[in-house]
Amino acid sequence: MKALVYHGPGQSSWDEVPDPDVKDAADAVIRVDTTTICGTDLHILKGDVPEVAPGTVLGHEAVGEVVEVGSQVRSVRPGDRVLVSCISACGRCRFCKEARYGQCLGGGGWVLGRLIDGVQAEYVRVPFADHSVHPLPHAVDSKDAVLLADILPTAYEVGVLNGCVRPGDTVAVIGAGPIGLAVIATARLLSPARIIAVDLAPSRLNAARALGADAVANAADPPQGLIADLTDGIGVDVAVEAVGAPESFDLCTRVVRAGGHVANIGVHGKPVTLHLEDLWIKDVTITTGLVDTFTTPMLLRMTAAGRLDLSPLVTHSFDLGQMEEAYATFSSAADSGALKVVLNRNVPGRRRTVPSLRGGASAAVKGSAHDDGP
Amino acid sequence: MKALVYHGPGQSSWDEVPDPDVKDAADAVIRVDTTTICGTDLHILKGDVPEVAPGTVLGHEAVGEVVEVGSQVRSVRPGDRVLVSCISACGRCRFCKEARYGQCLGGGGWVLGRLIDGVQAEYVRVPFADHSVHPLPHAVDSKDAVLLADILPTAYEVGVLNGCVRPGDTVAVIGAGPIGLAVIATARLLSPARIIAVDLAPSRLNAARALGADAVANAADPPQGLIADLTDGIGVDVAVEAVGAPESFDLCTRVVRAGGHVANIGVHGKPVTLHLEDLWIKDVTITTGLVDTFTTPMLLRMTAAGRLDLSPLVTHSFDLGQMEEAYATFSSAADSGALKVVLNRNVPGRRRTVPSLRGGASAAVKGSAHDDGP
Amino acid sequence: MKALVYHGPGQSSWDEVPDPDVKDAADAVIRVDTTTICGTDLHILKGDVPEVAPGTVLGHEAVGEVVEVGSQVRSVRPGDRVLVSCISACGRCRFCKEARYGQCLGGGGWVLGRLIDGVQAEYVRVPFADHSVHPLPHAVDSKDAVLLADILPTAYEVGVLNGCVRPGDTVAVIGAGPIGLAVIATARLLSPARIIAVDLAPSRLNAARALGADAVANAADPPQGLIADLTDGIGVDVAVEAVGAPESFDLCTRVVRAGGHVANIGVHGKPVTLHLEDLWIKDVTITTGLVDTFTTPMLLRMTAAGRLDLSPLVTHSFDLGQMEEAYATFSSAADSGALKVVLNRNVPGRRRTVPSLRGGASAAVKGSAHDDGP
Amino acid sequence: MKALVYHGPGQSSWDEVPDPDVKDAADAVIRVDTTTICGTDLHILKGDVPEVAPGTVLGHEAVGEVVEVGSQVRSVRPGDRVLVSCISACGRCRFCKEARYGQCLGGGGWVLGRLIDGVQAEYVRVPFADHSVHPLPHAVDSKDAVLLADILPTAYEVGVLNGCVRPGDTVAVIGAGPIGLAVIATARLLSPARIIAVDLAPSRLNAARALGADAVANAADPPQGLIADLTDGIGVDVAVEAVGAPESFDLCTRVVRAGGHVANIGVHGKPVTLHLEDLWIKDVTITTGLVDTFTTPMLLRMTAAGRLDLSPLVTHSFDLGQMEEAYATFSSAADSGALKVVLNRNVPGRRRTVPSLRGGASAAVKGSAHDDGP
Repeated sequence: MKALVYHGPGQSSWDEVPDPDVKDAADAVIRVDTTTICGTDLHILKGDVPEVAPGTVLGHEAVGEVVEVGSQVRSVRPGDRVLVSCISACGRCRFCKEARYGQCLGGGGWVLGRLIDGVQAEYVRVPFADHSVHPLPHAVDSKDAVLLADILPTAYEVGVLNGCVRPGDTVAVIGAGPIGLAVIATARLLSPARIIAVDLAPSRLNAARALGADAVANAADPPQGLIADLTDGIGVDVAVEAVGAPESFDLCTRVVRAGGHVANIGVHGKPVTLHLEDLWIKDVTITTGLVDTFTTPMLLRMTAAGRLDLSPLVTHSFDLGQMEEAYATFSSAADSGALKVVLNRNVPGRRRTVPSLRGGASAAVKGSAHDDGP
Repeated sequence: MKALVYHGPGQSSWDEVPDPDVKDAADAVIRVDTTTICGTDLHILKGDVPEVAPGTVLGHEAVGEVVEVGSQVRSVRPGDRVLVSCISACGRCRFCKEARYGQCLGGGGWVLGRLIDGVQAEYVRVPFADHSVHPLPHAVDSKDAVLLADILPTAYEVGVLNGCVRPGDTVAVIGAGPIGLAVIATARLLSPARIIAVDLAPSRLNAARALGADAVANAADPPQGLIADLTDGIGVDVAVEAVGAPESFDLCTRVVRAGGHVANIGVHGKPVTLHLEDLWIKDVTITTGLVDTFTTPMLLRMTAAGRLDLSPLVTHSFDLGQMEEAYATFSSAADSGALKVVLNRNVPGRRRTVPSLRGGASAAVKGSAHDDGP
Repeated sequence: MKALVYHGPGQSSWDEVPDPDVKDAADAVIRVDTTTICGTDLHILKGDVPEVAPGTVLGHEAVGEVVEVGSQVRSVRPGDRVLVSCISACGRCRFCKEARYGQCLGGGGWVLGRLIDGVQAEYVRVPFADHSVHPLPHAVDSKDAVLLADILPTAYEVGVLNGCVRPGDTVAVIGAGPIGLAVIATARLLSPARIIAVDLAPSRLNAARALGADAVANAADPPQGLIADLTDGIGVDVAVEAVGAPESFDLCTRVVRAGGHVANIGVHGKPVTLHLEDLWIKDVTITTGLVDTFTTPMLLRMTAAGRLDLSPLVTHSFDLGQMEEAYATFSSAADSGALKVVLNRNVPGRRRTVPSLRGGASAAVKGSAHDDGP
Repeated sequence: MKALVYHGPGQSSWDEVPDPDVKDAADAVIRVDTTTICGTDLHILKGDVPEVAPGTVLGHEAVGEVVEVGSQVRSVRPGDRVLVSCISACGRCRFCKEARYGQCLGGGGWVLGRLIDGVQAEYVRVPFADHSVHPLPHAVDSKDAVLLADILPTAYEVGVLNGCVRPGDTVAVIGAGPIGLAVIATARLLSPARIIAVDLAPSRLNAARALGADAVANAADPPQGLIADLTDGIGVDVAVEAVGAPESFDLCTRVVRAGGHVANIGVHGKPVTLHLEDLWIKDVTITTGLVDTFTTPMLLRMTAAGRLDLSPLVTHSFDLGQMEEAYATFSSAADSGALKVVLNRNVPGRRRTVPSLRGGASAAVKGSAHDDGP
């Protein structure tokens, strides 16, 4: 099959590799129908995630169809349409038993596209399938569902729930990339009175408004004044860091009210300065976290019920075979305006055993950004 | 009356000052029977708390008797024996209505001995008396009660509750001064399986054991190895910072487990480095806070029921008139071994209206360190 | 002034009574601009609430203007437009300090229109004004605000919060009168996936749909089958009893899932049978409660932000002088289709000191149902 | 092997039955070293639990050694000493993923000794072993450990945690049989100020005192007066029903304070009358539940750390072969004073494959009540 293989810092390609098989009785093999690229994938390509070995297939967000399961898999069967979650879970360890799957001690956690081959491929082996894939209701289309593999539960669990958003709150979201936008979309489930989005890119601030932000501020112009005005000088109830930079983390700690929450989602590459000389007296709660995906079933229900409109999050669609073009578009977001780019298996005529057809189908749509179709 | 007056950095003295009066209908005037000195008072004397104006009477922890109340005070009457809490509360503002009294927006919060005259004096005016003093049950003696003015609720609310200590947990307390020791004493209310105390002073580690620590470690010898051994390499559930130094805060973030809590109590004078490059993925919760004293009634009930043995916390007792000696002892804790030093009004013969008698009574016991009570 | 006076079971009239005055330094006197009638008022008139003494002015929901305050009132001033909450609170007792104002031990709780004269009058004395009235933002009009005096916080606190509604839940609301409808409106703040309303009256089920119910069922046709179908046979996450009858409470316990919540709001006049022989093993939580109004400030913020559309709740408006007609309409809801009936002071020309004008103004609009105007 | 087989209402015997085998890859077969009898077993024998089919081996509490595991079992190995929990869990269903194992939808829940053969036998097959047995630390002896199979987690989860016991609370425990006593022992983990035990049997009230009750009351003499005296007329914070009778449930609802909790643990055979005409206004929370055993690892840690002294709970010990005598003693508790009766495999000489030795060893100790020893 074809897959996007990491070959060391700065190098990756859409290569022919062996098809995956069931190795353990708890495994499932999934045909990938829809996948997407995460900001973390770009970090891997830069060499920032050294545990990723050259030769690894990247990607940890997918929708697909089960093609084979191990003897112990009870929750899904071949033919089922499923969401492949970014987090796998052994289901047995101390952390899994507390639904803290992201910290799984039994071989799960974030392994796909990092420690084992991932989903930017035609097929993928998913370990611990009973705890790592979710059957998809018909009412959820694949373009929406793939957003529930990582960014929606990450935004909701690590941003909204860790931040303790409550009805009537004022929430500041620092960073309006895909994750920050997903925070805006999912924070609304808890009815804050006001969401303030801060970013440098006007296009992202527009997307923030489309997803429900009530006020936006350009980060180039320090937003403390605006926030003080909107909150009677008290500060926001919840500040969500969705960038991964020292300055944006610092901003969160400056705009949060006494008794408020700073929820860090950003992936940081270096330390930050924490002004405890100001904050020790201020009753703030700061949280960090990797997603656990324990809210994925709820987010699926809400998406199926039409209560989460995620359409502004997807800006580009590609055929699966256009993986390299998709990476180019996503990695030049400042120019392309890309938020999430979605890749779909080209539908008719695909057979797992006929690789030549795959290339042909891919060529047919080369260069076109198309929607997820029937 | 006599009072300990701050005269600017490095200067204070036990001066004759005017007696306080009821100024507002919500005030009470209290005769101070027992008081103590807080580490924060030493910070004030060093000039670290610039909002304290020269001329201010210091002190924010006392037990005494109500001598006069304003017309709107309904909870206490002259003659009542009361605890004067370090936190005053207007009772009406947004934060008071959420029991976040330390952040009172209506003129309360930590004001005694900081923004208004405090309790290291023969008498003190307490604003918002209905929300700021607590009637004392007979079963609680004054030497114990005075510890409930600040360090017990601070330790319990900002350390134990913010840290979410639960039965079966492993808790590391970094710093075994009075606050850290009070964390140990109050953490036991929630039955951790194991408390590990870390400090530089062997005498404090002994006190930690006396109050219930199960293991102790000298901070000179990095305790990460011990903690890893005791927790199967996973780390502690809760780490409490009770020092106020960058190194001890950093240690907390290194010994806490994934999903654990770091509760900062320490008063910090400078920023700390927060290693978000390690912590972003680790599901940690970091809290800061000033005490709100909402648990003071519960702590009083537990003390009255004999369920909180605080005796190891008090190492020295003085007469109120020996205020300067008491400060000298407390500020040289490394030599004196002082934890909490308690000062008591010399009992018989005191009259509010006969200042000459006060001095005399005070002189009668000069030099003797005596216990509270006949 | 004029007021609706209870004269014993079955008897009340719109009488001339003395104007109220400030009696305690914490009191405020409010000119009533808007009020409404509660189902509880009908219970009082039937004699079901024996603690209400003949001679008492009824009513506990109002919007008005402060005309006089006692010397200790700090939160409002004459001229302020305020919401008069159904719950007064001393602010000092154990329960008030826990924000459990409905259980106030210091003279508050539900006293207006029950133990002291209420708000179905031209003026009302409100005790403990700092804790019992809320300044109103301009953006909230009086017709909406008066719904926040009782039914909105009751529905939200006793139904939605006690019931622990969470995003993605299925919620059954048994009873679609004003309180049940307010449950539907406020449950949506927490984004259940589905709200099912059950009532006997088709007009109320229509109102339920208008306020956001996703499915409705006529109680005449037992809804267990529908609920089982909608929940894969598992039952609802939350069932809210908003009737006050044994059958509807029993229905709640039959449709709730294992691990679910039954939140009782209904005012019950007799015992119910609780089938513990079925429920002991089922992990259910049953709650009861009187409103505390601690969420009123949040509900005001949400109403001001346009995030709570309450308009379907008000079906009739009257002039304040038409109190008896309003009662007649409200008490014949089966015929009139009345949900909430709102009464407004006839604007302009009212003067507190010219009683004759009041009557005249009232007469001028007799018979007309008019909106709350500019 | 030998096992206690249910033969229909009123009939059971210690029979020779086939040894169990691994049937599913997730199964383990355990040699039973220690077991005990539960009040529920007596209910089964009376015919009160009709889903138990004649021919079923009874018992759901055991300690033993793993002798065989299926291919998918990863948490335990042959030779491991383990606790067999009363609750089995598939680990995959919706409820298991929320740690609500008692409500397992995938074939688990309370199945041992009810829907499948139980542990009052020489060997037992345990399904879903990874989620249903717990490796035992050396520091926990078997007589204590067997109490953690059911009554300790039941008391803690369904009584203490559901009842929201907090430091400083007053807790009433109605019923001082094994479960009520276990509530007393585990409530202390959360440091209530006072525990009041109510029972008819003086011997049980003595055991209650030994386990930490601060006050006891004989149920023959209504305890409302005592409770009112001890709580200033306000009532208890938490009332735990540990009997399973309408009168004791009713008593709980009468002694609980406004805002308090009633936690039902008792197994009820008929409905109770719930006085909602009094309770609707009182802010009470009533909970029911089957144990989930999610706290078993914590309770094991606390027992290993010597922080749970359970010795007063075990009054009688028997050899496993004395099963019928043990039942006789336990079922005549009023005469025998039995709380928990523990049965132990007679140690030396047992071999799974030599049935004749088993009988011999059993006969050797017939009639003697001996402790669990080396």
